[in-house]
Amino acid sequence: MDTRLKRQRAADHRIAERDSAVAPDQTDRLKLGTLDGHLGYFLRRLQVSVFKDFIRTLAPMDVRPAQYSVLLLIEANPGRSQAAIGQALEIERARLARLLHVLEGRGWIERCAANGDGRSHSLYLTRAGEKALVRIKALAARHEAWLAETLGSKRRLQLMDHLKEFG
Amino acid sequence: MDTRLKRQRAADHRIAERDSAVAPDQTDRLKLGTLDGHLGYFLRRLQVSVFKDFIRTLAPMDVRPAQYSVLLLIEANPGRSQAAIGQALEIERARLARLLHVLEGRGWIERCAANGDGRSHSLYLTRAGEKALVRIKALAARHEAWLAETLGSKRRLQLMDHLKEFG
Repeated sequence: MDTRLKRQRAADHRIAERDSAVAPDQTDRLKLGTLDGHLGYFLRRLQVSVFKDFIRTLAPMDVRPAQYSVLLLIEANPGRSQAAIGQALEIERARLARLLHVLEGRGWIERCAANGDGRSHSLYLTRAGEKALVRIKALAARHEAWLAETLGSKRRLQLMDHLKEFG
Repeated sequence: MDTRLKRQRAADHRIAERDSAVAPDQTDRLKLGTLDGHLGYFLRRLQVSVFKDFIRTLAPMDVRPAQYSVLLLIEANPGRSQAAIGQALEIERARLARLLHVLEGRGWIERCAANGDGRSHSLYLTRAGEKALVRIKALAARHEAWLAETLGSKRRLQLMDHLKEFG
């Protein structure tokens, strides 16, 4: 494991130990057993670490990963429908509706009835949304730089290439 | 993207289209924009696909990924504490307690007060838990075989090696 990530995990462990008042011998490394053969387990571990850092880094703007994805997709595809955005990001309809409601409440996006079709809404960033997104992207770039530093720039790119192959 | 995964995604799309009654032109591929540079986005996409298949494949035993991880860790480390299992899997305490309660209710695990310490519990599989785990592992192996077929055996291993480097 990378040294920085190790150091962070070790710090997390110390906090967890203190919180749970466990004797140190109880925290020896456990055997993974059959789990060691499951890709999903390792995928999930890295994904959780990455999302934790994202949330921590974006805290000044109080933006979660799914909100960020939606803002970027609306920016890159202005006027596309709620359904199209939901499909592209595989966010289920009710969850997307709640998420858009929050972004609308913050004045960052607007929904317009599309082509007189009451069921469908086109999504746009507002001027305030565009401004907020400049600051949000700057924080997200800091997160991505942390990742490059943590994993190594080359390994980050290799991993990204591997993952992109699968869509 | 791999052909099988593509086919599955396309089928998911058709269902989503039908459900949301969107005109086909509304479902053209969207631009990813800045999202295209974020490792977390691609990590999350593959992780969600993998977990979906896991849940579908394990449905006959009604076992979720986190429950499966906990069962395997108890199997590989009998008698270890609730806190140690939670730390190893990075599951927060309240969520782990609920999860263990379910597994206990199904008669698969037992919690024993450890060393007369009322706060700490040692975890064991029951005989019924061991028996269930045989069937659960057989289904999980089927899921992993699907992954090897979907991603290609070699690419699955490469990706696993990459991810394991990061712990």
